[in-house]
Amino acid sequence: MSNPASAQTANGEAPKLVKGLEGVLALETELSFIDGQEGVLLYRGYEISDLAKNASFEEVAYLLWNGEMPKQSQLDELNRQFREERPVHPDIIDHLRHHTPNDAVPMSALRTVISMLGLYDEEAEDDSPEANMRKSIRLTAKLPTLVAAFDRVRKGLQPVAPKQEGSIAFDFLYMLNGEEPGPAAEEIMDAALVLHAEHGLNASTFTARVIGSTLSDIYSSVTGAMGALKGPLHGGANIKVMEMLLELDASGEDASAYIERKLAAGERIMGMGHRVYKTIDPRATILHGMLEGLSDEKGERKWLEMSDTIANAVTEAKGLNANVDFFSASVYYLLGIERDLYTPIFAVSRMTGWTAHLLEQWEENRLIRPRAGYIGPRDKTVKPIGER
Amino acid sequence: MSNPASAQTANGEAPKLVKGLEGVLALETELSFIDGQEGVLLYRGYEISDLAKNASFEEVAYLLWNGEMPKQSQLDELNRQFREERPVHPDIIDHLRHHTPNDAVPMSALRTVISMLGLYDEEAEDDSPEANMRKSIRLTAKLPTLVAAFDRVRKGLQPVAPKQEGSIAFDFLYMLNGEEPGPAAEEIMDAALVLHAEHGLNASTFTARVIGSTLSDIYSSVTGAMGALKGPLHGGANIKVMEMLLELDASGEDASAYIERKLAAGERIMGMGHRVYKTIDPRATILHGMLEGLSDEKGERKWLEMSDTIANAVTEAKGLNANVDFFSASVYYLLGIERDLYTPIFAVSRMTGWTAHLLEQWEENRLIRPRAGYIGPRDKTVKPIGER
Repeated sequence: MSNPASAQTANGEAPKLVKGLEGVLALETELSFIDGQEGVLLYRGYEISDLAKNASFEEVAYLLWNGEMPKQSQLDELNRQFREERPVHPDIIDHLRHHTPNDAVPMSALRTVISMLGLYDEEAEDDSPEANMRKSIRLTAKLPTLVAAFDRVRKGLQPVAPKQEGSIAFDFLYMLNGEEPGPAAEEIMDAALVLHAEHGLNASTFTARVIGSTLSDIYSSVTGAMGALKGPLHGGANIKVMEMLLELDASGEDASAYIERKLAAGERIMGMGHRVYKTIDPRATILHGMLEGLSDEKGERKWLEMSDTIANAVTEAKGLNANVDFFSASVYYLLGIERDLYTPIFAVSRMTGWTAHLLEQWEENRLIRPRAGYIGPRDKTVKPIGER
Repeated sequence: MSNPASAQTANGEAPKLVKGLEGVLALETELSFIDGQEGVLLYRGYEISDLAKNASFEEVAYLLWNGEMPKQSQLDELNRQFREERPVHPDIIDHLRHHTPNDAVPMSALRTVISMLGLYDEEAEDDSPEANMRKSIRLTAKLPTLVAAFDRVRKGLQPVAPKQEGSIAFDFLYMLNGEEPGPAAEEIMDAALVLHAEHGLNASTFTARVIGSTLSDIYSSVTGAMGALKGPLHGGANIKVMEMLLELDASGEDASAYIERKLAAGERIMGMGHRVYKTIDPRATILHGMLEGLSDEKGERKWLEMSDTIANAVTEAKGLNANVDFFSASVYYLLGIERDLYTPIFAVSRMTGWTAHLLEQWEENRLIRPRAGYIGPRDKTVKPIGER
């Protein structure tokens, strides 16, 4: 192996500092392509709008893991496995009941139970590609059950066991609410899961690959990813969007006046602008369409109208476009989902991307390990404590 | 912010792929300096041999967190906090008893309880520097308690509550064995903790900083680091060294003949050679001295002699030197520590480095987020499932 810490001495050139690794290509992937100038997002070569319209979340999971859209028999088999894997070990429900404070931050509680799942998986240490594929299916199947059980237990309700029927979106909404969702709600949840499944080397996916690159197991890797997704710079923006909308609604202020005031004060508007997309985030366009349909169905257009007013004003004033978080906030709100579950739902979806990246990482593993430049002192010596 | 995904289009230059980020400087640090050619390791400007000889683990923790060696009053206050923070919430011991299978991989069980600690810390979401410093002390104080409780519970023994006296090394060995360690054992454990506390942007430290860079909390960050340290390419080498020595001992084969046979077969010898150090790892030299003293004290020189024979043969044949893992194996073995606790003990020590890096990261945070180059297909369209 070469010698990172001495590269400077070895080849006479000082390596360049790239703070935050911005723009550095750390690896190659076949999973997704993002063109931020053109507003294009492809999963395995398929346009996100094509997938959102014409593929289920289960088909997208299959695509991400296997590189091809499933044939009917392959999809049937995957659905069978997903349904079979939905229940979680009673000890884990017990842990949510007795060893998870009711006011726990959802992503912290879920980080813990995802880690715990690994203790109850006899295949946890089997690093064969076949076992890792089974564990990817298992993790994707069980996380919705954990999210729903966490939410019900903290509210003093009985957890609802999965029906082990229908789609992930269907059973998830069923476990969350204790009643079967209508077709519209299921369809919207399914599309939301498709939209959030994969997005290149974002911080949580990168975390999963860094951990995986030590040849640690899949549970260690996705537990780390859960922790990264929890970060406000990563997975938490749509909560902030909804809080803004609720604040505006409660104040009774006119949306145009509100946003004008915020912009004049130089405040940052959450959900607007994206490090990657300089034009419209294609996922935002799709979510906007979903929000329109849902608003009409529910006969409640105020969140849509407020969102549009704010988004248009920010685009006009600052050239920033709505990103995936901007309209998903109102969509989840209209579906009746608790605000602090928005990031866990993101995780339910992104679990497929994380695990697909891990499977890809392990096909040809290489430790991901940059260096740090040292800017501290040298030549210090320990003095006796009385002389310090 | 600039536009990583479109850097290629924007400036006309294709960013260069640096697989594994090898040799890339991702950030600047004041925490440690490694010169692999000269065999130098500094923490905050102090030589590792100076610290191992003249500073306790607690002083090193203070140094890493604060940048200076503590005065007596500062050390006394830190020791007071460490002792106060050693007990863990009874729910967590309960979790180890009832919700952790007895055959759980130690690093997986400990990854879970480190995550769980965050649920029981009222300051978990307080991201002020003061709270993060308190949490760094807390995590460093509690991990030894968790390691010892895990080990005793899985053996069907009662966990031993910390004495809340003496050094971390003292109380850790006390909780592990149920009896107070002698001064020699305490001193060796203390020095081992000093040696493993910090080592630049290794994969677990890098993981902690990537997670922290999303402004996620300290528990999320170190939980991810635990998962990375679990990886065989990172924290697990000294277990493999000890397994080799035990295999050799059981076979009755002569050590010279054994290593000659292994080298002739082209087998990799664990604990020899290092990605960074091209000369002797300074920590190995110190551990060798500790192993000599301990071997004489125990009247058991065979592990030392086998280790020397193997190390010398590998250095001669392949130019590889012993690294930190090579002699720590026999040291821990002679201290009577279970083999699968070697990595958890590494974590007990490295917790100080992880948290020091997080405190540094948050002083001037920047999201750590490289890019991936896309090498997959484009222009695919979803076909009806019957036509695939």
